[in-house]
Amino acid sequence: MAKKDGEKKKPKAPEPVLRELLRLPEGERIDLTAYDAGATPAGPTDKAAGLEATTALGPRLADLQERLYAASTAGDRRRMLLVLQGMDTSGKGGTVKHVIGLFNPSGCRIRAFKAPTREELNHPFLWRVMRALPQPGEIGIFDRSHYEDVLIARVRELVPHRRIGRRYGQINRFEQSLAEDGVTVVKVFLHLSYEEQRARLLQRLDNPEKHWKFSPGDIEERALWPEYRRAYEIALERCSTDEAPWYLVPADRKWYRNWAISKLLLEHLEALDPKYPPGDFDVEECRARLLAS
Amino acid sequence: MAKKDGEKKKPKAPEPVLRELLRLPEGERIDLTAYDAGATPAGPTDKAAGLEATTALGPRLADLQERLYAASTAGDRRRMLLVLQGMDTSGKGGTVKHVIGLFNPSGCRIRAFKAPTREELNHPFLWRVMRALPQPGEIGIFDRSHYEDVLIARVRELVPHRRIGRRYGQINRFEQSLAEDGVTVVKVFLHLSYEEQRARLLQRLDNPEKHWKFSPGDIEERALWPEYRRAYEIALERCSTDEAPWYLVPADRKWYRNWAISKLLLEHLEALDPKYPPGDFDVEECRARLLAS
Repeated sequence: MAKKDGEKKKPKAPEPVLRELLRLPEGERIDLTAYDAGATPAGPTDKAAGLEATTALGPRLADLQERLYAASTAGDRRRMLLVLQGMDTSGKGGTVKHVIGLFNPSGCRIRAFKAPTREELNHPFLWRVMRALPQPGEIGIFDRSHYEDVLIARVRELVPHRRIGRRYGQINRFEQSLAEDGVTVVKVFLHLSYEEQRARLLQRLDNPEKHWKFSPGDIEERALWPEYRRAYEIALERCSTDEAPWYLVPADRKWYRNWAISKLLLEHLEALDPKYPPGDFDVEECRARLLAS
Repeated sequence: MAKKDGEKKKPKAPEPVLRELLRLPEGERIDLTAYDAGATPAGPTDKAAGLEATTALGPRLADLQERLYAASTAGDRRRMLLVLQGMDTSGKGGTVKHVIGLFNPSGCRIRAFKAPTREELNHPFLWRVMRALPQPGEIGIFDRSHYEDVLIARVRELVPHRRIGRRYGQINRFEQSLAEDGVTVVKVFLHLSYEEQRARLLQRLDNPEKHWKFSPGDIEERALWPEYRRAYEIALERCSTDEAPWYLVPADRKWYRNWAISKLLLEHLEALDPKYPPGDFDVEECRARLLAS
């Protein structure tokens, strides 16, 4: 379970570590307007190179996923949880399709959180999240998450302000417990520009095959952009912890978004360095019995 | 929702319909030894062609899956359920990895059934299956299923014989209700030969990175091969119905198995012919509001 950082210092050019580059600082004031949503930090130079680089990460991701799963069959409780948040059209669904599509689907536990049901509202806000967690060896993916309870809940004043205020601490304690239980929590904020959102919504209108993804309510939500941005800034400020940091991924370029999240997951999986467990049986004896069968 | 059979009669050479070719007859006595597990009915000529053909089906599968999901957002309850059964090492997990990996993972609901937990045993045997069903628009995948309750349960005499006998009818009624509720049930028996199972188990022994997939218990189960085969024959005989037929897929060649199941799913999805739902909003008005925002 030790990190292999020592072994990895090979003489070739140092590759930029994306999780250091994209990680939001802990406890600092965050101004999202200061981040360029069209940037491609440490990324491939263009779309073609980006697609190729992302595809090239696939086999390594799938291999590490299999090792993580294999380790769980021998009692290793470690697992990963990718939390995806971002404005409408920022690419949460696209990330699941293109990045999670690189993994073996049987080891992925995906949950898209919608408006809470009546049953969910009758429980603490973390209840439904708790039930959707990945099991040992799995990669969990949250398309939206418990953060909605401090985002839309704050902007739309769905619960009293004081209750919202307490939730940041509740989230941090919850995520700390997850980390202690072997969950590597990777929280990604898909940073989209106001202009790119307009373009993406217009694209949905222009294509009848995309009308099912559109609702006039999207325009009303867009009108609250500054309020959502502020709600995000507060959440990112208060909930980027050592145990579960937030990563800001510029999301105006889909190919960069897919590459960056694939790379982030790879870096985390490599740090976990999961091992195939040894068999607890007599190989030669089993071989002889099989050959005789 | 009407099938497009009429439109599809194009003058080009008729493609063999795999679901007719592989479908097991209803109510007839089945002798599995009469089926060649190494056969490749209607399939590509060799492995390279098989891999290519399977990859080529990917975009059509993903497109139809998206349409099915989109339709569900407008109230279409239709969904698909792939049931995978077969002896150990017959490739249930490999099918999920390679075939289901062609779909968007967010629309797939995968469940691998293990030995029932104490809670599951306290419920009727269909209870845990019911809870794992796909929701409208989704593709459900069962790696093992309620059929284990007439397979291992029969061979290992886990429940009284009379109760096993009643389960076939219970399964048929359950699956008929699913079909009536819009579930297209595709049940696939992965037909493996006794010799190929030996070879695959030996491969697991030969590779330390595959030891986690092996257990000496696999050899004990293998010793019961004739009993399992008979239990399969009975289940396939009694539970291949019009609403939920069984398909026999020769599974000694992995590339054929993957191609055949992909093709089977494609044929079923094409028969469903799901449509993108029309938007229920004023496109021009929304466009104007967006452009002004």
